[in-house]
Amino acid sequence: MRVHYEKWSLRKRHFWSRMWEDYEIGYLDRDLVPLLVLLNRDRDIYTTSSCSGRIVVVDGPVPWIREETSVVFKSHVPVTRLEVDFVFKKTPHRSYWLIVTGPIIHFSTASLRKALDILRKARTAGFKHSGIIHISPARGIFTELVTGVYAAQLLRTQSTSLISELEVEELLATFNNALIEGKKRLQKLYEILRARLPESLDPYIESDLKNRSIRLLEHTPLEVFYEMCGDLCK
Amino acid sequence: MRVHYEKWSLRKRHFWSRMWEDYEIGYLDRDLVPLLVLLNRDRDIYTTSSCSGRIVVVDGPVPWIREETSVVFKSHVPVTRLEVDFVFKKTPHRSYWLIVTGPIIHFSTASLRKALDILRKARTAGFKHSGIIHISPARGIFTELVTGVYAAQLLRTQSTSLISELEVEELLATFNNALIEGKKRLQKLYEILRARLPESLDPYIESDLKNRSIRLLEHTPLEVFYEMCGDLCK
Repeated sequence: MRVHYEKWSLRKRHFWSRMWEDYEIGYLDRDLVPLLVLLNRDRDIYTTSSCSGRIVVVDGPVPWIREETSVVFKSHVPVTRLEVDFVFKKTPHRSYWLIVTGPIIHFSTASLRKALDILRKARTAGFKHSGIIHISPARGIFTELVTGVYAAQLLRTQSTSLISELEVEELLATFNNALIEGKKRLQKLYEILRARLPESLDPYIESDLKNRSIRLLEHTPLEVFYEMCGDLCK
Repeated sequence: MRVHYEKWSLRKRHFWSRMWEDYEIGYLDRDLVPLLVLLNRDRDIYTTSSCSGRIVVVDGPVPWIREETSVVFKSHVPVTRLEVDFVFKKTPHRSYWLIVTGPIIHFSTASLRKALDILRKARTAGFKHSGIIHISPARGIFTELVTGVYAAQLLRTQSTSLISELEVEELLATFNNALIEGKKRLQKLYEILRARLPESLDPYIESDLKNRSIRLLEHTPLEVFYEMCGDLCK
C-alpha cells in the first residue's frame, strides 16, 4: 500500500496549524513542544494529539469506558494533597479513580520503514507498548508510542471511601514519582530521536517556524517540565 | 518487505507445539484455547504467548518495572477476599499492587493486509489499544491486541497499608467485574473473527488437530471461562 503523498501533506499542514492553535490557548502540554517540533521538521512525519504524561482524577464506573467517565481533575505536574482534597468532601457520581499516565505520542509517517525505525528506537527509550495502529493512503502509517507507566487507583465509590486523608499522601508520592518517570522517558525519547532526525527537512515547516518565535524550541522536554513545576520537582 | 514464508512456517510449528506443551502443564489459560486454535487454523497466522485476562498481586516499587517486580498471587477467575488476605499479614518487600488486566493476544501474520484486517476487527470488539509492534522477514507481521481494561491499585507500602480488610471487599467487586468485562471482550473478538477465519486452512494444523482430542475446541471462550470459575461467576 502506497501513501498518497499530496493528501498526506495536506493533513500534515492541518495538524501542524492545529498544534499551534492548541499551544496558543494553553491546551498543548508545553513539555511536548520540543519533541513534536523535532518530529514535524522531518518531511515524512507529522504528529497528532499527544500527551506528555499526567495525573487525573476521573469520575466513572471504571476508567476505560470513556463515554461514562468524566475528568474532574487534571495536572501535568506533581500533585499535592490539597489539590485532591475534594475527593473526601464530595460524593462521586459513580467512583473516583486517581490515574497516572506516562507520555503518549501519536504520529504518522509517509513510509513503513520510518515508522518501524522510530518504533524500534522508542522501545529502547522505554516506550514498550508502542505499535502501528492504522495504515491508509491518506493518513499514512499511523503509530502510537506508549510507555507502561500507568496506574489507576480506585479512591472512592458512592458508598465507601477506599483511602484516608492520611494515606493519600503516601499514594501521591508514588504517583508523582511515576509521573516524573514518564517525563524522563519522554526526555530519553527526545534525545534518541534528535540524534537521527530530521532525515530530510520539511521546507514548509522550516519557513513556518521562522515566523514563530517559540522560546521553548531551544529547550529539552525535561527543561520545560522543570520550569513548569518549579519547586514541586526539586 | 516480504515475509520469508519457509522460515515463518517453521516458527509457526514451533509456537504451535509449544502451545500444547503449555496446555499440558496447565500453563495455558484454558479459555484462550478456542481463539488460539481459530487463529492458527488459518495458514497465514500463528499465535505466541497470550493471556485471557487475570488478576494478580505483585510486589514491587511500581508494576511496570518487571525486573524489580514479582508476582505473588495470580488468578484467571474472580478473586475472593480470603485469597488476598496475606496482604494484611505479610509486609511486602517493596509494595503490594493489585492489578486487573484484560486479554492480550499476540500473533504473527504472513501478510500486512491480514494483520490490518484483524486489527480493524479487534478494535470493534473492544481491543482499542492494539497495534503492529514488529515486522521482519522471519517473524512476519507481529501484532498485539490489547483492551483498555486495566487497573493497578497500590495496596500497601512497607510503611503504610492503603486499604482496610473491609474496603478490600469493595475493591475486589470492581476488579472482578473488570476481569469479567475482559472475558466478554475476548468472547466478542472470537465471534467476530470466527465469522471470517480461517480464510484458507493450514493442512499441517488440521492434521495435527485430528490427532489431539481437545474437548475445549467445541466451546467458546466464555463457555470455558464459566466452567473454570463455577459459582464465582454466577
